[in-house]
Amino acid sequence: MQGSIRVPGFFGSSVASGIKSGGGRDLSLISSKVTARAAGVFTTNCFKAAPVVLDMERIKKGCAQAVVVNSGNANAATGEEGYKNAAAMSRAVSERLGIEDELVLAASTGIIGERLPIEKITRAVGPLVGGLNADGISAVAEGIMTTDRFPKIEHRRYFAGGKEITVCGIAKGAGMIEPNMATMLSFILTDADIDQSCLSGVFMEAADRSFNAITVDGCMSTNDTAIILANGVAGNRPVSETSRGFVGFRDALFDVMESLARSIVRDGEGATKLIEIVVEGAKTAGDARKIAYAIANSNLVKTAFFGEDPNWGRIISAAGSTGIAFPADSLELYIEDIPLFMHGSGISGKEAAEIMKRDEIRILVRLGMGNETARVYTSDLSHEYVNINALYRS
Amino acid sequence: MQGSIRVPGFFGSSVASGIKSGGGRDLSLISSKVTARAAGVFTTNCFKAAPVVLDMERIKKGCAQAVVVNSGNANAATGEEGYKNAAAMSRAVSERLGIEDELVLAASTGIIGERLPIEKITRAVGPLVGGLNADGISAVAEGIMTTDRFPKIEHRRYFAGGKEITVCGIAKGAGMIEPNMATMLSFILTDADIDQSCLSGVFMEAADRSFNAITVDGCMSTNDTAIILANGVAGNRPVSETSRGFVGFRDALFDVMESLARSIVRDGEGATKLIEIVVEGAKTAGDARKIAYAIANSNLVKTAFFGEDPNWGRIISAAGSTGIAFPADSLELYIEDIPLFMHGSGISGKEAAEIMKRDEIRILVRLGMGNETARVYTSDLSHEYVNINALYRS
Repeated sequence: MQGSIRVPGFFGSSVASGIKSGGGRDLSLISSKVTARAAGVFTTNCFKAAPVVLDMERIKKGCAQAVVVNSGNANAATGEEGYKNAAAMSRAVSERLGIEDELVLAASTGIIGERLPIEKITRAVGPLVGGLNADGISAVAEGIMTTDRFPKIEHRRYFAGGKEITVCGIAKGAGMIEPNMATMLSFILTDADIDQSCLSGVFMEAADRSFNAITVDGCMSTNDTAIILANGVAGNRPVSETSRGFVGFRDALFDVMESLARSIVRDGEGATKLIEIVVEGAKTAGDARKIAYAIANSNLVKTAFFGEDPNWGRIISAAGSTGIAFPADSLELYIEDIPLFMHGSGISGKEAAEIMKRDEIRILVRLGMGNETARVYTSDLSHEYVNINALYRS
Repeated sequence: MQGSIRVPGFFGSSVASGIKSGGGRDLSLISSKVTARAAGVFTTNCFKAAPVVLDMERIKKGCAQAVVVNSGNANAATGEEGYKNAAAMSRAVSERLGIEDELVLAASTGIIGERLPIEKITRAVGPLVGGLNADGISAVAEGIMTTDRFPKIEHRRYFAGGKEITVCGIAKGAGMIEPNMATMLSFILTDADIDQSCLSGVFMEAADRSFNAITVDGCMSTNDTAIILANGVAGNRPVSETSRGFVGFRDALFDVMESLARSIVRDGEGATKLIEIVVEGAKTAGDARKIAYAIANSNLVKTAFFGEDPNWGRIISAAGSTGIAFPADSLELYIEDIPLFMHGSGISGKEAAEIMKRDEIRILVRLGMGNETARVYTSDLSHEYVNINALYRS
């Protein structure tokens, strides 16, 4: 396929196994030719889907070689049988690939509370593995979609010590959709050779800045999963926290994951705008984040953006409602570079109203209390959001 | 006026002073013939409206004799001038009533960030005070409305030691309304003679069970105010925490305030349903409350109720998302008395779908972790909510 993205040593495949009633691709596989270093970030919801439980156990070893993903069924709230099915899905793949079962991770997204049709899946594993090819990653990006309007794939290439390194990520999310809630899945593939503890640390940090900094409706799925595989085939000098190659890798990873996160918000259910909320001047990073999220999750703020109204009152009120104390007079609020509120009073202007018509808008809140900052992305709240979520039948 | 509610020793009045462009009643006054014991609960938002700042200072003394309230303008985010205007509004009333200025409390609700038209207000204070009458409390309930669809007034009468005691409350809220955010105002009047520290304690407790247990959109206003005045004219044996009359007073107060809180949710912007969320079996009351609020503020849950879909997956996922750990298998979820989820699996049935069509619905979540409980009221999320809040122009 012309223009498809390759990551050296990785292969992808996606087939229609019959889980989705519409007959679309619903079973996908990513595989590395060699065992890769691996790290993962998973939902903190008390209700964890079966594949999440499986992955959390397996990823402790810090390595993996394949990820099998089905869409159309979340295999969540399915009890003991659900766990057995997740394991069976993995085993069918490991046997066919001829690799250790423990090296296969699994992910599911779709309707919750329904039994995974494991027979359909095991029957499709033959064609799935048979279809693995170096141009298959884009097909996987499509195969993991549920109600996503477009596939999400990002990559960066850079040179380190004469070796080209690729960092590529795919993602799906975040409408709540097909069934019940917003599941976000993301798989990051890189041919970089990187120390496992370094990989794990930088991946956590990148997840905090990207997938953990977005909100469409403040809800957290039972299935949220982000996994990184680094297979080392680039042959670079291994990256560690103190190595020269660290910054290049980190920057590429941050860039890929932040771009994916923005795409997820853009594709949020009913979203018409991408809103970036930056909080500066907080005493602690936790304070900054709490205030940014209070603004990002405020239905009053989100509907004001849908209505294209630069309603500073709703924004400062959300900022002031978290229980974190700051002097009201010190807060400054900007939309792009236009001040909306300072010295305790609001400022309304024609310029701000014009900016509200854009489809990407940046809000800056300065607290004047310290030096900590946070950045969160959110979407507006539209009629379409209510339609999608009220009309869906569980 | 026939059928109007009287509270011995209290008078009410409401006039059109010209703050509201439509010409409706917008300036109201409650006055007691004698100094009353007083307690208040105010917004914890960092941005506090000028009258809130004024009241928080004055109520420390534990007594008050009048409350003046304007609607149509919040006198919030108005700086130093806003505070002077709140004080001027109070002074105009105290001079005309011939009472100490410190005994007058003030409240405002309406557009934020606009200067209070204090001349209009002081000009109207003559007719306002002149109109005070024992049947005027209902007029005040109407005069404090902004986009409320109906006035909210509740009362209970009971006998204690041969004396009849009245507890009456009025409230407005909780759409975000006229301008920017949901302001909730409530004034509770009673002729009971009650010890000040007892009044303060039981009022805080009642506010926690009522106004602090409701959510329409999880937003907190700059102007939220609840005040109780107890003028003692019933001549009962003074109520204290250890007196025989305590339980009767507390029950009447809880009843009045919970009824007002339910009315506020019922009148929430775009609300079509009142949803009661009960969490039982938590380790701490804080845990129970946090989980109840996570469900109550989930847009996925709220849209499911609007769509009349008994979507248990959204409810358990919201319950599991707070960071409070509990074993997923121990959670039980009921709608009214119909189980929706237990032993780790969902139960769907025709009965649950029928119950979702009701306009008052009770959800019960049992965690099986301890003995603490919480109760929260919320509304559904409808197209009308988006309309009201997106189309309003600040």
